[in-house]
Amino acid sequence: MKFKYQCSECGSTYDLDPELTTCPSCQKNQRDNEPLRGVLEVLAEGTLPPSPADRNVALLPVPLEFFPPVPRITGELWHPLRLCEEMKLPELFIMNDGSNPTGSFKDRASVLVSAYAQQCGINSIVLASTGNAGSSMAGIGAAAGQKIVLFLPETAPPAKMIQALQYGATVYKVAGNYDMAYDLSLEYSEIMGGMNRNTAWNPMTMEGKKTVSLEIFSQLGDKAPDRVIVPTGDGCILGGVYKGFKDLLQFGLIKKMPRITAVQAEGSNALYRAWKSGSFDDSPSSTIADSISVDIPRNGYTALRYLNEFQGEVITVSDEQIIQAQTHLSSGSGLFTEPAGAAAWAGLVKHRDKISAGETVVVLATGSGLKDTATAMKGIHVPEQSIHTIKDVRG
Amino acid sequence: MKFKYQCSECGSTYDLDPELTTCPSCQKNQRDNEPLRGVLEVLAEGTLPPSPADRNVALLPVPLEFFPPVPRITGELWHPLRLCEEMKLPELFIMNDGSNPTGSFKDRASVLVSAYAQQCGINSIVLASTGNAGSSMAGIGAAAGQKIVLFLPETAPPAKMIQALQYGATVYKVAGNYDMAYDLSLEYSEIMGGMNRNTAWNPMTMEGKKTVSLEIFSQLGDKAPDRVIVPTGDGCILGGVYKGFKDLLQFGLIKKMPRITAVQAEGSNALYRAWKSGSFDDSPSSTIADSISVDIPRNGYTALRYLNEFQGEVITVSDEQIIQAQTHLSSGSGLFTEPAGAAAWAGLVKHRDKISAGETVVVLATGSGLKDTATAMKGIHVPEQSIHTIKDVRG
Repeated sequence: MKFKYQCSECGSTYDLDPELTTCPSCQKNQRDNEPLRGVLEVLAEGTLPPSPADRNVALLPVPLEFFPPVPRITGELWHPLRLCEEMKLPELFIMNDGSNPTGSFKDRASVLVSAYAQQCGINSIVLASTGNAGSSMAGIGAAAGQKIVLFLPETAPPAKMIQALQYGATVYKVAGNYDMAYDLSLEYSEIMGGMNRNTAWNPMTMEGKKTVSLEIFSQLGDKAPDRVIVPTGDGCILGGVYKGFKDLLQFGLIKKMPRITAVQAEGSNALYRAWKSGSFDDSPSSTIADSISVDIPRNGYTALRYLNEFQGEVITVSDEQIIQAQTHLSSGSGLFTEPAGAAAWAGLVKHRDKISAGETVVVLATGSGLKDTATAMKGIHVPEQSIHTIKDVRG
Repeated sequence: MKFKYQCSECGSTYDLDPELTTCPSCQKNQRDNEPLRGVLEVLAEGTLPPSPADRNVALLPVPLEFFPPVPRITGELWHPLRLCEEMKLPELFIMNDGSNPTGSFKDRASVLVSAYAQQCGINSIVLASTGNAGSSMAGIGAAAGQKIVLFLPETAPPAKMIQALQYGATVYKVAGNYDMAYDLSLEYSEIMGGMNRNTAWNPMTMEGKKTVSLEIFSQLGDKAPDRVIVPTGDGCILGGVYKGFKDLLQFGLIKKMPRITAVQAEGSNALYRAWKSGSFDDSPSSTIADSISVDIPRNGYTALRYLNEFQGEVITVSDEQIIQAQTHLSSGSGLFTEPAGAAAWAGLVKHRDKISAGETVVVLATGSGLKDTATAMKGIHVPEQSIHTIKDVRG
């Protein structure tokens, strides 16, 4: 298999190169406060081996020998029987990425970025993150022995910062939001060197995230679902989901693209607005689902292009619905996912009447609920008083 | 395959029965403030299928049809290359149970208890827990649609209580320690009914935990390790580890028992004291590793019997060593484990000169580090100030 970069905007192709991030000609059109222009995708050319495991490895642009020594990252497809019954969707599955090495979906991207840096002989990786990508890159980098420099908004949930520091990353708290951290991290890597892993900016992030679609296809027994419900902030997971199925289309393993339902928080719905209006505006975000809270969806143009090409859709849910969805999912299936993951479940609940009972539906649960217990507190009632004897229980 | 209970103390056998917990004749010798007398183990009789997956299922005393709808719980055997090199132990592995559905080793027991309750038509499960067993049983019970009643010491880490409440368990905070919660939960299930899942008290707990040994054997390619390092509080995980390898011995799959090194916190070392002196005393415990903090090791007699029969050993580590071990493991391998898991790693570091370089060693990491971030804070330095520009980084 051979690999190239291809600009998602103009279609130009380039050889893989760690210095190349976005398409030089499209990058010229970049304005401030808008999504990235000229996002590069990885184009695979060749023939696929027949076995599912070999196939999924062959579709990765970096050979396995450069991968960090962590367990294979596949996510786990749950079949939550009680919720299937309740929702009247017998073929409903949840892809749980909370069981990944650092507890989030972002490990898919981090592993590929780590491997690519290793292949290129680059030992330092720099990024901005609302938390998950940062703790993920820190953990994967620790396994590989790479130096990780992380710019984290000071509002990131404490557990994610603690995790990154446990892994030995250099962490800078930023007196601002994700977008400020993003800009500072780019400035840092320009001055100090190292591979920048920012979402969408580094083409290996979307490419790593595509593995979720390859795994869904494999774990369903070489069958594509009818619909995938994707929590969406900057559009990079959404792009990755599309990219994986696009690879399967390209190599003839599926005949049509699944319907993708992107779910955004009402308070952070930049992609939703652009999908409705056709263009991106600039508006501050605010949602309890920190992983999908972004002002500027960096992968917005690519995501929008995919949504339009493949008849995808974007819906929004309120923070209240996210909080309710989290306990609904926890108590109905035993899967405790972070607020962003619960957003996708909230989208399914809200959108249920648009989905036919015969559909095979996969909901992405993008991280462990333990990553943000402060938000999880909002959905439960903590007993105030401690008991002393069994009489206190019986009242 | 047929299954019976066998008393670990007098050897009497009994049919499986949800009403039967400890051996009635040995239970008569029970004194206050000592480990359980007459702990029952499950005895398998029959012939094993040849394939590893079928074999591990055949060794479970409850048919798969009664199991809750959660992914298969296997743990993941990490091979932390950087730490292998540093420790000069090329065949060093870490069994990570943080990737289990609720993020801890306890899922192994909870799944089997849930299945057995389902088989017996019992829809309510009662237990005391320092946190992990409770959140585990709550999550597994949620998947199965069982009612979970949990008695939790008020000192349990907040994340574990939040998790249990998210799963919809009824939680009683107890104004006392684990031992008080243990007694209250027994009183509750006697009065109110339901299956009691207390560790060691319910024979399915140790039996579920044995699966870690079956999985280690399978994941090493049908080969037993030379040594397993086990974080130890009440001795139930230790008993489970022995029980799994005992099954493999019984069916001729291994020729000798691996050397087991039990690691206790210095402040909660009841089993260590008994291993040295030959008898159990009663002394209050105190350690930051909450999962292995117990005054009375409920499975103490069984654990001690195994240690003596198979030349196991018990060592202790300080809280300071546990805190250091946690960051050592996180930053050296990318595996962020809870303090109890780090205790086993601390034991390896302390005991390194007693281990020969050619040994295949497995260290048990029993839960996700995200379950107790307050303790994880002790090992790291959190940046005090936020940065505004890149100049703040360059100083």
